[in-house]
Amino acid sequence: MIQAEPIAVEQRIAFGDCDIVGIVYTGRLLNYGVEAIDEFYKQVVGRGWFEFCTDHKLATPFVNVTVDFRKPATPRDKLICHVAPTRLGRTSIVFSVIGKQNDAICFEGSYTCVFTSMDTLEKQAPPDWLAKAIAPWVG
Amino acid sequence: MIQAEPIAVEQRIAFGDCDIVGIVYTGRLLNYGVEAIDEFYKQVVGRGWFEFCTDHKLATPFVNVTVDFRKPATPRDKLICHVAPTRLGRTSIVFSVIGKQNDAICFEGSYTCVFTSMDTLEKQAPPDWLAKAIAPWVG
Amino acid sequence: MIQAEPIAVEQRIAFGDCDIVGIVYTGRLLNYGVEAIDEFYKQVVGRGWFEFCTDHKLATPFVNVTVDFRKPATPRDKLICHVAPTRLGRTSIVFSVIGKQNDAICFEGSYTCVFTSMDTLEKQAPPDWLAKAIAPWVG
Amino acid sequence: MIQAEPIAVEQRIAFGDCDIVGIVYTGRLLNYGVEAIDEFYKQVVGRGWFEFCTDHKLATPFVNVTVDFRKPATPRDKLICHVAPTRLGRTSIVFSVIGKQNDAICFEGSYTCVFTSMDTLEKQAPPDWLAKAIAPWVG
Repeated sequence: MIQAEPIAVEQRIAFGDCDIVGIVYTGRLLNYGVEAIDEFYKQVVGRGWFEFCTDHKLATPFVNVTVDFRKPATPRDKLICHVAPTRLGRTSIVFSVIGKQNDAICFEGSYTCVFTSMDTLEKQAPPDWLAKAIAPWVG
Repeated sequence: MIQAEPIAVEQRIAFGDCDIVGIVYTGRLLNYGVEAIDEFYKQVVGRGWFEFCTDHKLATPFVNVTVDFRKPATPRDKLICHVAPTRLGRTSIVFSVIGKQNDAICFEGSYTCVFTSMDTLEKQAPPDWLAKAIAPWVG
Repeated sequence: MIQAEPIAVEQRIAFGDCDIVGIVYTGRLLNYGVEAIDEFYKQVVGRGWFEFCTDHKLATPFVNVTVDFRKPATPRDKLICHVAPTRLGRTSIVFSVIGKQNDAICFEGSYTCVFTSMDTLEKQAPPDWLAKAIAPWVG
Repeated sequence: MIQAEPIAVEQRIAFGDCDIVGIVYTGRLLNYGVEAIDEFYKQVVGRGWFEFCTDHKLATPFVNVTVDFRKPATPRDKLICHVAPTRLGRTSIVFSVIGKQNDAICFEGSYTCVFTSMDTLEKQAPPDWLAKAIAPWVG
C-alpha cells in the first residue's frame, strides 16, 4: 500500500519570535513544530485539538519530542512544515515534522503523543473517526 | 573528581501557559526547559544569553532538543528544573534538565548547543571564562 | 482610610522575549503586565487565576487594557511590577500595573477585568473571600 | 480624498493560546493585534518589522496600546484583524486594529508607535518609501 504524502503546513514566522541574534528563538521554534501537528489534524480530520477536547473529550498529550535543528529560521520567509504520522500504536501516535524555509531544512522532529480521556488523562485507543482519517499514512 | 550537583532553577508556571485540558501546553513546557538553561548560566557564570550576545558576541544555538514528558505540569505549583551540563565538546555542550513539581518528574530533557560567533554563526570553542565556570560539571 | 501600598511583583525577563532590536518585544511585554496581576492575587489572596477557575469556577476576563510604554525593557535586569487594584465596581475591577527596571518606569498600565462564572461567562459580583482580600486597596 | 479600506489580516488562533476557560488568554490575544500590524506592513509595504530592522536600521517601538475586549476569541475560528493607520504624526503613527471572528468583534484596539533609529532608538521621521506606502490611509 502506498503511503500518503506529508501535509505541507505554511506558517508565518512572527517578528517577536526572532531573538537578538536575528534568528528564531529555540523555545518558540519548538512550538512551530508542535502547532504544525494541530494544523495537520485540521486539514486531514477537519478538526483540531480544540475540537478534540471540546467536542470529543479527547486529549492527546505529548510523551516525547525530539528535534534536530539544521539551519536557523528567520522571519524573512514562511516556514513550511511537512507533517506526517509515521506510526500508530494502540494508544499512541508518532509524527514526523520537517520544517523548511526556501527548501532548506531548518529542523526535523519526531513527536509522540498518546490518546487520552480529557477528563481523566487515562490512555485509550484513538476514536474510529480519527484512526480512519490518518489511515492513509499509517494504515 | 566529584561532579557538581545540578542547579535548581525555580520557575512560576503562568496561567496562560495552561491549556483547556488544565495542564501546561507542550509548546510552552518545552520553553520552560530551554529558559532553565539560561538561568543556569546566570547563576553559575553570572551572565545569561543576553549578555553572551551583547557583551561577548557569543551565540549558543541549539542543535538538538530531546524531551520525555512523564507527568502533566500545572500552574498550581512551582516548576523546579534541575539543570546540569553533562558533556562539553570542542564546540558544543549538552545539558540535562529535569523538571519537577512537588518532587514528581514532569519532564526530562537533553539539550545540545553549539558555541558560535553571534555575527557569523560559525562554530568556535567556548571562551575561557565560560569553560572555567562550567568545569565543576564537565571538567 | 489609608490605602494599602502596591504589591511588588518581581519577574525575570526571558532572553526569548527580547527582539532583534535588543529590547523586549511589545507583544510579550504586554503579557508581563497581565501576568503580574495573577501574581498579585497569589500573594494577596493566596490563590491565582488557575485556582479561581479550577476551585471556584470563577473567571475574570479582561475588558480593557491600556498601557503606556516609557522606556524599553531588556533581559539584563529584573522587571519589578507594582500592582494595585484602583477601583472595585459591582462586577468589575481595575488594576494599575507600573513596570520598572532599575527604578526607571518601563510601562504604566490600567487593566479592567470583570468577574464571571467560568462556565457561562455571565457577569457576577466578586466572591466575598476575594472582595475581602482586596479591601485594603479598594475598600 | 477617499481613505483606503482597512487591510484584512487572517490569523490562525493556536490551541496553546487558549486557556482553561476555553477562550484565548488576554496576554496572547494582545499579541495577535500587535502581530497584525506587522502583517499590514508586509502586505502594504512589502516588508515587515524584521526587514525594517535588518535592511533599514528602522525600529518602530510602541508607546501606547489600548484595547477593548468585546467578545472572547476561541481557536475554533480564524481571527480576522482589520488593520488601518489612522493618523501619521511627524515621528509617530497610530493604528486601528479590529479583531473579528465570524463577523463579531472580539476586540478593538488603538496602537501608537514611533519611528526610531534601530541603533540609537532616537525618534526620526518615517522614511519616504514607508510614508508613501501608507499615504492612501493617512495622506
